[in-house]
Amino acid sequence: MSDQNTQILLRARPVGEPTADDYSIVTTEVPTPGDGEVLLRTRYLSLDPYMRGRMSDAKSYAAPTEIGDVMPGATVAEVVESRDPSRAVGDVVLAYGGWQGYSVAPAKQTRPLDPDAAPISTALGVLGMPGFTAYAGLTQIGQPKPGETVVVAAATGPVGATVGQIAKILGCRAVGIAGGPEKVAHLDELGFDAALDHRAPDFKEQLKAAVPDGIDVYFENVGGHVWDAVLPLLNKFARVPVCGLVAHYNDTSAPEGPNRAPALMSNILTRSLLIRGFIQDEFAADHQRNFLTQAAGWIADGKLRYREDVTEGLENAPEAFNRMLRGQNFGKTVIKVS
Amino acid sequence: MSDQNTQILLRARPVGEPTADDYSIVTTEVPTPGDGEVLLRTRYLSLDPYMRGRMSDAKSYAAPTEIGDVMPGATVAEVVESRDPSRAVGDVVLAYGGWQGYSVAPAKQTRPLDPDAAPISTALGVLGMPGFTAYAGLTQIGQPKPGETVVVAAATGPVGATVGQIAKILGCRAVGIAGGPEKVAHLDELGFDAALDHRAPDFKEQLKAAVPDGIDVYFENVGGHVWDAVLPLLNKFARVPVCGLVAHYNDTSAPEGPNRAPALMSNILTRSLLIRGFIQDEFAADHQRNFLTQAAGWIADGKLRYREDVTEGLENAPEAFNRMLRGQNFGKTVIKVS
Repeated sequence: MSDQNTQILLRARPVGEPTADDYSIVTTEVPTPGDGEVLLRTRYLSLDPYMRGRMSDAKSYAAPTEIGDVMPGATVAEVVESRDPSRAVGDVVLAYGGWQGYSVAPAKQTRPLDPDAAPISTALGVLGMPGFTAYAGLTQIGQPKPGETVVVAAATGPVGATVGQIAKILGCRAVGIAGGPEKVAHLDELGFDAALDHRAPDFKEQLKAAVPDGIDVYFENVGGHVWDAVLPLLNKFARVPVCGLVAHYNDTSAPEGPNRAPALMSNILTRSLLIRGFIQDEFAADHQRNFLTQAAGWIADGKLRYREDVTEGLENAPEAFNRMLRGQNFGKTVIKVS
Repeated sequence: MSDQNTQILLRARPVGEPTADDYSIVTTEVPTPGDGEVLLRTRYLSLDPYMRGRMSDAKSYAAPTEIGDVMPGATVAEVVESRDPSRAVGDVVLAYGGWQGYSVAPAKQTRPLDPDAAPISTALGVLGMPGFTAYAGLTQIGQPKPGETVVVAAATGPVGATVGQIAKILGCRAVGIAGGPEKVAHLDELGFDAALDHRAPDFKEQLKAAVPDGIDVYFENVGGHVWDAVLPLLNKFARVPVCGLVAHYNDTSAPEGPNRAPALMSNILTRSLLIRGFIQDEFAADHQRNFLTQAAGWIADGKLRYREDVTEGLENAPEAFNRMLRGQNFGKTVIKVS
């Protein structure tokens, strides 16, 4: 290949919001695949909040990215060279290529995509990890019954929008929370029963009015003041799947007191709440196939809609990543790389 | 009846630890049962931590006791007059007579006890609500697998001691936490794999050493600094049934900061923890019969032992109640009333 490979590496562990100094952008040779491997040219790179955790070395569900390593991330990519009979040049696959223009992967660790079935970028969003996170957390942990009230924040994001729409499909009242009037208007278009702006000065009162029967499922992907407003409204036996806490990912220390952890435990006790953290992986073996079938049908029927926030150019990934952590994205954040 | 009825009423809602001024002790006429009712003479009154919640008017799983009402509580009582064919004078029953010498109840709301099968006071402890709380929370929420590590605090109490012994029966490593050397020695006698004193200056280090494979189930009935020590040791997918938080029942305000609630949620997320509050009632229909059968067998086999902390005289209930809230009881707290 005469082309070069642009890579974005983790240069330093960020303190608070990542800055340009926390990355280095380098140009290297395009790698060469070995037996059983494929060389992939990145078409789309997914940016997801979990990546902020990988940049830190705090104990988490995944090992941190090492300093000097390529930033991690799911990619939709095209096979440009194949050393495995199962993949041909030109195939489009889902891979985990990271923040770079080219990557090499074992063919077995890529999943072929059908460009005629759905836009290929959806494999990173509504038909990918975020969509399955929504589906698995809602159906397996939230277990909403028809008529119950489901609340979700970051509701125009790829997880939240899918949670709300699946809640509607399951016969629930869906209440979505987002930041700003444009996003709130979009939630109305998606069919949420109520759409609230968490920046409104009377947000707490608005939320209370929007859930006249209390909250049975709160799908937690944000934390912060939204969670503080939700907690007093949870019904007895409410379920809280926790897949993200993006409001806290840039925290550098515990917030000021008083210490509300005992009160949280007390709420859990007195209302028999279920709080359950999860990563979608644990449900993949049992439920991913079913999800893909159902979600494709819902999209075809117009019941499940999605929105993407596309930024052109790999070099703009750090800034787009920060926009997403601040909630300034509008839909699934993807980088169009080539 | 020529006898009189001694009653302990709630006079005021306590602030912090209840004082003598929060109760009034009165003497009234012995009540008269109506059709379908029985008159009961209290033999044993159960004192349980949940009663502290009933003395407050904060929102909880049960309505608060009204000012001027008899303090609530489960009782083992003898039928002294019956207006229902299903109960005879002399029958011993489990009832909810409260802090008083006599009470009237619909016969249907009493459960006959067989004094030959087990000491009647056990219907308030190991074979009653505390024992079933342990069984239901451990088996239905904790769901420990053989070889896993189960940790429980207040481990000489009626819930904790039962949790630890059932954990052993299920093939788990059982670690008990209690206050003071006498209680710790008792945990050794009960067959716990490790027994720790939470008052030890190096308690955190002792706990870490006692759970070399981490903690898979923490049965939470205490809160406070024990929970703070447990949280960092929980394994991925650990389960935390929450049935009590006795360390906090006398709290008058949220503890000083920093605010550790976001860190708690972050731990739930990054280790896929399950935290679930519960009251044993929700499991009674499906599991209580099975529990009674199994527990009676375990007691007969010597695998499930219990200990009672008996105080003579109803008038001593307020002081015994405070001793229990401070953890100064040693076994199931009961008042021998007559």
